[in-house]
Amino acid sequence: MLRTVNCGSLTLKQLGEEVTLAGWVQKTRNKGFMLWVDLRDRYGITQIIFDEERSSKEVMHKAQKLGREFVIQIQGKVIERVSKNPNILTGEIEILAHSVEILNPAKTPPFTIENVTDGGEELRMQYRYLDIRRNPVRENLVFRSKVSLAVRNFLSAHDFIDVETPYLIKSTPEGARDFVVPSRMNQGQFYALPQSPQTFKQLLMVGGMDKYFQIVKCFRDEDLRADRQPEFTQIDCEMTFVEQEDILIQFEGLLTHLLQEIKGVKVDKFPRITYAEAMKKYGNDKPDIRFGMEFSELNALAKGKGFNVFDQQELIVGIAVPQAASYTRKQIDTLIDWVKRPQIGATGLVWVKCNPDGSYKSSVDKFYDEKTLASWAEATGAKAGDLILVMGGDTHSTRTQLSALRMELAEQLGLRNPNEFAPLWVVDFPLLEWEEESKRYLAMHHPFTAPKPEQIQLLENNPGEVAANAYDLVLNGNEIGGGSIRIHDAEIQKKMFDLLGFTPEEAQAQFGFLMEAFQYGAPPHGGIALGLDRLVAILGGQESIRDFIAFPKNNSGRDLMIDAPSKIDQTQLDELNLNLKQN
Amino acid sequence: MLRTVNCGSLTLKQLGEEVTLAGWVQKTRNKGFMLWVDLRDRYGITQIIFDEERSSKEVMHKAQKLGREFVIQIQGKVIERVSKNPNILTGEIEILAHSVEILNPAKTPPFTIENVTDGGEELRMQYRYLDIRRNPVRENLVFRSKVSLAVRNFLSAHDFIDVETPYLIKSTPEGARDFVVPSRMNQGQFYALPQSPQTFKQLLMVGGMDKYFQIVKCFRDEDLRADRQPEFTQIDCEMTFVEQEDILIQFEGLLTHLLQEIKGVKVDKFPRITYAEAMKKYGNDKPDIRFGMEFSELNALAKGKGFNVFDQQELIVGIAVPQAASYTRKQIDTLIDWVKRPQIGATGLVWVKCNPDGSYKSSVDKFYDEKTLASWAEATGAKAGDLILVMGGDTHSTRTQLSALRMELAEQLGLRNPNEFAPLWVVDFPLLEWEEESKRYLAMHHPFTAPKPEQIQLLENNPGEVAANAYDLVLNGNEIGGGSIRIHDAEIQKKMFDLLGFTPEEAQAQFGFLMEAFQYGAPPHGGIALGLDRLVAILGGQESIRDFIAFPKNNSGRDLMIDAPSKIDQTQLDELNLNLKQN
Repeated sequence: MLRTVNCGSLTLKQLGEEVTLAGWVQKTRNKGFMLWVDLRDRYGITQIIFDEERSSKEVMHKAQKLGREFVIQIQGKVIERVSKNPNILTGEIEILAHSVEILNPAKTPPFTIENVTDGGEELRMQYRYLDIRRNPVRENLVFRSKVSLAVRNFLSAHDFIDVETPYLIKSTPEGARDFVVPSRMNQGQFYALPQSPQTFKQLLMVGGMDKYFQIVKCFRDEDLRADRQPEFTQIDCEMTFVEQEDILIQFEGLLTHLLQEIKGVKVDKFPRITYAEAMKKYGNDKPDIRFGMEFSELNALAKGKGFNVFDQQELIVGIAVPQAASYTRKQIDTLIDWVKRPQIGATGLVWVKCNPDGSYKSSVDKFYDEKTLASWAEATGAKAGDLILVMGGDTHSTRTQLSALRMELAEQLGLRNPNEFAPLWVVDFPLLEWEEESKRYLAMHHPFTAPKPEQIQLLENNPGEVAANAYDLVLNGNEIGGGSIRIHDAEIQKKMFDLLGFTPEEAQAQFGFLMEAFQYGAPPHGGIALGLDRLVAILGGQESIRDFIAFPKNNSGRDLMIDAPSKIDQTQLDELNLNLKQN
Repeated sequence: MLRTVNCGSLTLKQLGEEVTLAGWVQKTRNKGFMLWVDLRDRYGITQIIFDEERSSKEVMHKAQKLGREFVIQIQGKVIERVSKNPNILTGEIEILAHSVEILNPAKTPPFTIENVTDGGEELRMQYRYLDIRRNPVRENLVFRSKVSLAVRNFLSAHDFIDVETPYLIKSTPEGARDFVVPSRMNQGQFYALPQSPQTFKQLLMVGGMDKYFQIVKCFRDEDLRADRQPEFTQIDCEMTFVEQEDILIQFEGLLTHLLQEIKGVKVDKFPRITYAEAMKKYGNDKPDIRFGMEFSELNALAKGKGFNVFDQQELIVGIAVPQAASYTRKQIDTLIDWVKRPQIGATGLVWVKCNPDGSYKSSVDKFYDEKTLASWAEATGAKAGDLILVMGGDTHSTRTQLSALRMELAEQLGLRNPNEFAPLWVVDFPLLEWEEESKRYLAMHHPFTAPKPEQIQLLENNPGEVAANAYDLVLNGNEIGGGSIRIHDAEIQKKMFDLLGFTPEEAQAQFGFLMEAFQYGAPPHGGIALGLDRLVAILGGQESIRDFIAFPKNNSGRDLMIDAPSKIDQTQLDELNLNLKQN
């Protein structure tokens, strides 16, 4: 080793010891006759001192030339610091250097290697290897490693077997778009990169593996929204001879364990709500329940009172914003503007201030008397000092809009505490959802999700009403996992493909192997997949996944550091028997 | 759960308990009034008994209908078996069934689900989910999971951070052929799937991660030899501020730990030999040292004695085959035919029997007297009763041919004991190898391997002589890992690309990001990558990797089960702006 100790370990206990350290020059302070270097590595920072009186001329001379991010090796003696730094472990000592070697000089980095940097997003991505030197980014990656290992050990201890499934599989253009890989040995044919190992894990259950897990990269060629990546990591799991309850208990156990082991946080049994209830109470299926502001439907209290705007709407729904009656007109106008933005798309917002003195003041005083407003307050649970915000419109849009407002207000009011963790299960998802555009049903979860057994008859005449034993695990307003009990019967699987608009030939060509497998003794099974990127980000107290990924891609799917994708040689295309179309 | 216990757990301790079991029907024995079912799951087999006198008519009736591989759930009572089976854990009990439910019937499988099956390779691959139900295959996968986890925990305990590197990277057609992935969002451009995360792990070292590991899929689009896969798994590792010795110690520690923990085998400190020595003593760079038969060069003892065939050769080399002097003429002829096969390509084989009475009998008695033959015996270490086999030819081919013969003989003589583990390090590989065909140097390990510092000057005028701090970890005649100290200096890296025939423009286009990174404070670093598929197979006592991979591809790169690769829709090609060439 080019060091005897790392930069994060020396304390007064090692006083007087001769040590060799290697690392990066974080900064230098040069007083001419004396010079200090903060030497950094993954483990910490150790202060090095060069001193005219105690270090040789040659060493002093070399030390004068050190610049930021130079890689150096120093030898010296552990001595006690005059002015101690209680904030770091090594803060009581420094190293009196008697030799220094420059292992590699460094150009001045394009941004500062500090916890808060002056580098913009693009620059940080282009020089990601420098960005990773910064504590917050490096710590996120170390944290991710720790979470992964904890997941693996937990699942292994619970008899799950880590099985690697293939990356070069078959294109099944249902669902998201596949990335495809042209085959040279089988010309004119393509592999696809997996959107998930779904069918393989089901085949492992057919194969009797009983309990499977894998932490695995998955790929989706979608137009990237912010904070989506074309490649992402999934904790993929499947179990045999289980019912929904068994899976919920198992993975509630996993998350409880992670919160305890990684964050030292104890959580109670996770609440469960149905999909329908989540939509009604929170306007979305991944509610953040760290705070209240639950929806109250006000149709009975707000319609038929002469306020024409509300009378014609399908749904009137309100929330009580705690301690916001004191909002100024300007603050409220800002909220109204916010919901009217095209991203939200609301037409307006009715407000009612519940004054501390028990009176009400609203934007619709013309139409509603104090008694009615009081009934709104009662319905929404608004107390004196709160602000009621009410929206009206068609059910789906209004819920979505009010949900966005609820989250925005929670953000503004500081109610989304990243150190608080509020997991819950959302259950009883519908099996199918109707897509207006293509006039057909889509699978709400995926085409392998089983209808609830007692509702199988409904599939024939009323498929939209059928619920599934499908569930999402939600943490702090983010879906961190989802799963279901799967179909294990070839006939039901065929029926399902039929409902989703596959011709029998298409179903056979794409999923024939699965339906055939179901005829050789397929056991009842179900599973779940958790998004590792998001899980780690939330456990790390952040919402953006990008800084928990070592080498993320930008919103155009580009890796700015290595400059990929890029053109390839014509010979490579020729070998694959491919041509680029001329534009 | 559809079971209260699994099929591998019940013993006399549970006598009298009411249990629910679920699993597959391994086999039935039907005596009409009494019927036994062996019920199987991942954990074992439990015998179920249905008995006219004790089970209801309905249950007896259902039981009569059970076929092989049916998935059933039974309820019953644990009773003591009359005729016990001491070979299985559950062999002292059986379950008297009072209810049975068929969860899924099964067609008769295309091959028997037994430890030794009647299914051929193709059929087993096509129905891999049935193949996985067989104990040996399933146990291999469980074993692999165990090895992976042990590797992860060992490396994590040694401060290695598990960092996921991207799968969609940049095509660098040096080395093996890349699989490429057309980009839809960046038309006309392609990602490549990584042949290894080499450059990324080096950038992580530049980024200060200090110690990195990842168990990661890698991809090579090569014409597949037997027992190669287009996608394979690597234990990929890198360390900073290290010298070769540190890496050898660290990973010798890993393998020692695995052998101890997984196999209960203690091994001594691994021997180390240089590449040159390995070639000289074993004729290859991954010697199996579980047995002797080391090479002895006989030029001085075999040339100039009138045997023209040898006189003109560059190298005469022999081995002593233990206890083989008794081989019949026919046995020896078979060996001669074996080395003359085109796969080996030798022109012949000279043999010398060291008779038990101290005399010699050889195929070249005409040219060599007893004294000379005795000198060969002394040189090869042959004792009375051994057989000396000698080959001559150009150095490289002769070594390769004799090495193949040595392995074949060891196989025949049962010297390759799969329960014995003989690891070693092969060190001091040459930096470059000359390729006659293209008249240029290729990197022996890869283009990022550093020349030995003391030999850097040789690069200019005598690059073929330069050695590298590059090393292979060899186990039982298989290379299970290889690594090197890397270049961390932009100028040396440029020089290396130049030697390998890159123009400066090509080097810049493909690896500019790496050479740029080296200018911002790149630390000395090095690493290793172990092939997990092979490591697991060898630890599992086998040489073929295919049955340690859940869903392997065949030699044409096809997945016979899902039938991939396959054609894709024209719309998919259109979106990617690609055309298939017309043939």
